[in-house]
Amino acid sequence: MIKYHAVIFALLFIAFSSGCINMGERSPAETTTSFQFPAVSKPAKALNVAFLIMDGVYNTELTAPMDILQHTVFHTQPGMKVFTVAKTKAPVRSFEGLRILPDYGYTTDELPPIDVLVVPSAEHHLDTDLEDAEMIEFVRKTGDSASYVMSLCDGAFVLAQAGLLDGHLCTTFPADIPAFRQKFPQLDVKEGVWFVHHGKFITGAGGAKSFEPALYLAEMLYGKKAADGIARGLVIDWDVNEVPKEVVQ
Amino acid sequence: MIKYHAVIFALLFIAFSSGCINMGERSPAETTTSFQFPAVSKPAKALNVAFLIMDGVYNTELTAPMDILQHTVFHTQPGMKVFTVAKTKAPVRSFEGLRILPDYGYTTDELPPIDVLVVPSAEHHLDTDLEDAEMIEFVRKTGDSASYVMSLCDGAFVLAQAGLLDGHLCTTFPADIPAFRQKFPQLDVKEGVWFVHHGKFITGAGGAKSFEPALYLAEMLYGKKAADGIARGLVIDWDVNEVPKEVVQ
Repeated sequence: MIKYHAVIFALLFIAFSSGCINMGERSPAETTTSFQFPAVSKPAKALNVAFLIMDGVYNTELTAPMDILQHTVFHTQPGMKVFTVAKTKAPVRSFEGLRILPDYGYTTDELPPIDVLVVPSAEHHLDTDLEDAEMIEFVRKTGDSASYVMSLCDGAFVLAQAGLLDGHLCTTFPADIPAFRQKFPQLDVKEGVWFVHHGKFITGAGGAKSFEPALYLAEMLYGKKAADGIARGLVIDWDVNEVPKEVVQ
Repeated sequence: MIKYHAVIFALLFIAFSSGCINMGERSPAETTTSFQFPAVSKPAKALNVAFLIMDGVYNTELTAPMDILQHTVFHTQPGMKVFTVAKTKAPVRSFEGLRILPDYGYTTDELPPIDVLVVPSAEHHLDTDLEDAEMIEFVRKTGDSASYVMSLCDGAFVLAQAGLLDGHLCTTFPADIPAFRQKFPQLDVKEGVWFVHHGKFITGAGGAKSFEPALYLAEMLYGKKAADGIARGLVIDWDVNEVPKEVVQ
């Protein structure tokens, strides 16, 4: 019986340890269930992906999904074409102080048709940004016509203010969920997940968990081989089965 | 005996599942060993942290450590002052197409004293960038005088070319380790870790694993409470014990 116990403890030790070796966060037992992506056709053309930026935009919530979606060009044909859009082309200062030159100004330039709109969080997405009628109207119009709309962290406040999330399950930055529910009591907000996909909306928790919603979109559109290649290039041990998420099919 | 098995399987299931709930990657068994940071004094002044950028810089390897180190100002006093440095102040285009205005040009401006030099990877860090004698000399000089030098991904090639890594254990992007060893056969290169800390050098694997080397530095300098707060703000379930790393004490 002692030997039997020893085997069990060894198995438990291996199980507990397995999350932190070989660069990975994989839990082997979970790979046995297989997530079924919503059925979508592989895009026949390069999708235009616009990242909406403004003063106070959080670096990681801009760059994490931008990196994933831009890297599609190395793993599928045709991949995505990513660009930044702000109110004007004047330099934007991120929350962390990075000075960014927007590719387009939505009030000053003719924009390419936007297939995917990504709204990273910014410093004032819970207050003054929501009063920026011009920006909210841009998001409403673009979100209406886009095939997919993604928010990271408090970007969900902007989508909600534009009325886009009504009738959709969604999420936001974990600590801001109470404020989100209070401001938009009509919304069904999911806690404890890295992202929610419902209809054309993918809303993410944000921060360092801003890679996964984009990897999910990449795998849904371009397949597992492409997503795995992108993930490897960014030192992410990607398996859609292992990511805490909510997908309304 | 059947019941006994059922309990064991339940335990195994819980163990295997534990990595992927509550936003976390934590493996409870590993928290029992406690990593001892090298003993350093908390900085009495705000440390100046320079991020070296150039055309082809990879977004995430710039922004992940920048976010961690900039956010110190919300969790300790005095925190860090982060800024970008390029050859000149002309706009830099990242590998993914983000257009960045550098804060300083090292050939054109008087720079603040640099306490921490961070070298993110860039597209040509394995070839033409290594022939940029002016850039390599800037890195050598700044690296010599800085208190800490961090590289992400192929940024290690730049540090090695500047002669900074001689006699130090180090790492780089996993797929580039063979090329790194071939180019710099005198170096002792560690595989299978997210970062290596030896002396004043912290070299990271890069990609999405570019948050952890910076969180490690933040915790070493400012303590666990500060690092935990920064991590929470970026939706990272941080525990230094769980990160695959090599620290030469």
